Amino acid sequence: MKFIIQRDRLVQSVQDVMKAVTSRTTIPILTGIKIVASEEGVTLTGSDSDISIESFIPKEEDGDEIVEIKQAGAIVLQAKFFSEIVKKLPTDSVEISVENHLQTVIRSGKSEFNLNGLDAEEYPHLPQVEEENVFKIPTDLLKAMVRQTVFAVSTSETRPILTGVNWKVENGTLTCIATDSHRLALRKAQIETNASESYNVVIPGKSLSELSKILDDNNDLIDIVITENQVLFKAEHLLFFSRLLEGNYPDTSRLIPSDSKTDVVVNTKEFLQAIDRASLLAKEGRNNVVKLSTIDGGVIEISSNTPEIGKVVEEVQSKSVEGEELKISFSAKFMMDALKALEGSEITISFTGAMRPFIIKPLNDESILQLILPVRTY
Amino acid sequence: MKFIIQRDRLVQSVQDVMKAVTSRTTIPILTGIKIVASEEGVTLTGSDSDISIESFIPKEEDGDEIVEIKQAGAIVLQAKFFSEIVKKLPTDSVEISVENHLQTVIRSGKSEFNLNGLDAEEYPHLPQVEEENVFKIPTDLLKAMVRQTVFAVSTSETRPILTGVNWKVENGTLTCIATDSHRLALRKAQIETNASESYNVVIPGKSLSELSKILDDNNDLIDIVITENQVLFKAEHLLFFSRLLEGNYPDTSRLIPSDSKTDVVVNTKEFLQAIDRASLLAKEGRNNVVKLSTIDGGVIEISSNTPEIGKVVEEVQSKSVEGEELKISFSAKFMMDALKALEGSEITISFTGAMRPFIIKPLNDESILQLILPVRTY
Repeated sequence: MKFIIQRDRLVQSVQDVMKAVTSRTTIPILTGIKIVASEEGVTLTGSDSDISIESFIPKEEDGDEIVEIKQAGAIVLQAKFFSEIVKKLPTDSVEISVENHLQTVIRSGKSEFNLNGLDAEEYPHLPQVEEENVFKIPTDLLKAMVRQTVFAVSTSETRPILTGVNWKVENGTLTCIATDSHRLALRKAQIETNASESYNVVIPGKSLSELSKILDDNNDLIDIVITENQVLFKAEHLLFFSRLLEGNYPDTSRLIPSDSKTDVVVNTKEFLQAIDRASLLAKEGRNNVVKLSTIDGGVIEISSNTPEIGKVVEEVQSKSVEGEELKISFSAKFMMDALKALEGSEITISFTGAMRPFIIKPLNDESILQLILPVRTY
Repeated sequence: MKFIIQRDRLVQSVQDVMKAVTSRTTIPILTGIKIVASEEGVTLTGSDSDISIESFIPKEEDGDEIVEIKQAGAIVLQAKFFSEIVKKLPTDSVEISVENHLQTVIRSGKSEFNLNGLDAEEYPHLPQVEEENVFKIPTDLLKAMVRQTVFAVSTSETRPILTGVNWKVENGTLTCIATDSHRLALRKAQIETNASESYNVVIPGKSLSELSKILDDNNDLIDIVITENQVLFKAEHLLFFSRLLEGNYPDTSRLIPSDSKTDVVVNTKEFLQAIDRASLLAKEGRNNVVKLSTIDGGVIEISSNTPEIGKVVEEVQSKSVEGEELKISFSAKFMMDALKALEGSEITISFTGAMRPFIIKPLNDESILQLILPVRTY
């Protein structure tokens, strides 16, 4: 194997596939990055066996030569060292060649690295994914849907299925749901799909977070292929594989109340900042519980009290309050997470009593919903 | 106590005095910030008993009213909560008043905090410093002198005196020296001093690092007062006290070789980057040892080798090499620290053999010197 490549493109691809590489693996070869040079260009692969990422650097792009292939071949190099080295090389162009068995030489200007490589034949094969049923979604919408739901997955392994996000496709609509059983985030959107098929799978939250970090903010379409135990996201020159979680995701539709007793409309930013300040003195339990009360004149009072430190009272002027008076306590952290995930400058919060879950939505937007279970303090 | 203050000024002063506050103190009141309102303005104080910082906010500045004093008085508030609260208050103006014994109310817009204060009478008094002998130094020069020496102090408490920087004033020259016994940094400068007196003190490295963070980059003069066991730095509206380390600083002048056998002149940045790359594969011991050899044509070769990972060879074209041929090994970390501390685009490295300390200086600049002890590997 021998090729000369533009350093910037190599650095970018290495960074992308590094997202899948972990040093805490029991399979030694997975601490490496697989490099394959072919007539078409160079392919890099990283994997931790849950997530696998493949990044392709074409020989040419828009008439520019990016890679000059001198000899096809393959090698696996230690990811930790290889990624640090390529970042710090002195010149714009890098030569990588396998010489003398698995010894790999990296040359750039007056700098020459000799790395002990591993045999690429021993690198595990990526899953073969049948691409019969594909649906498409713009990159920025995909990133938004991940951002607006993934924070609500469970971080506890008590119920492993809740560490993933439930993706359902039905009638041309993709619905993403995450819950840790104390709160729930739901986002739906229309998608492009040729098939009339429906899916119901659970994707690990960690996979979605890593995917989101790699994708640029643009509206290029991403192809999504779902199989029995894998999901594949295909962007230009990038393949992202994740395993799916096994088991049935709980039916969350019954959790979401359909009626409400008190509806409050507030400015998102003002409300978020008031919750944030009130949480400063709310150290009861680890979730920073604050109290919310409707008071006269459409004013919402947020308060918290920790006797040994002090107390805080915040008033937020609502746009409207309809229905019954209410006093309710909830986690300030969950509320702030939910508010940050919502778009729009005004939100509706719909309560069904102090002991029932409540719903937060942007005003006049049915595509996203956040649900929080209150905390019993009264 | 009651006053109304501009929030931005309060936030800035709180951040400054917070640098001296630690939660790991055995004196509970030192977890607080002391606030004193007088006819002249508001004074904040933070201290961990090693470092004490006092920041003054005047009633007026350039004709602008910054503080409106309603009633003089004093209180101590929990630093952790007070600093978080002031940062997040909603309006530009903040009212702070002590009501009902030590209960302190902070009001800003529709936000109202009640904090349990502590009695300001119980806050320790800052040291009284006689200001007879003062010398002056511009802020940016002070910051440079700290930056160029403090990294070389010892982090080990085996010889506590080496955790400080030795400041010597003699004949109108300030000399700062730090060493951890494996390397040494020295910087000197002319200073403004009225007294013909001389000093020889050791200031804790941590104090100098914190001082440097607080001071803005400008050339305003800082007054420095040295007493038997304290040093006081006085900037506008800011007092910074540090205790001095007790004991005699070792005589380092004998360590610095006066002659040399090999002198090399190189471009600082090229040399630094070559060392940085060579250190990537240098994991022998924790100090990343690299080798330097003079080879033909004024070329300097930097190399390292870790058999299980690989090896690297870097070539740097020197501006000149004079004297004997040389092979020497040293810590890449110490070399990079030293190079980053130096100013100037070209440096001279003067060696006196493979087993003797060597010196790094900017070309044609005698005010700064870095010394490194080699490592025995040949």
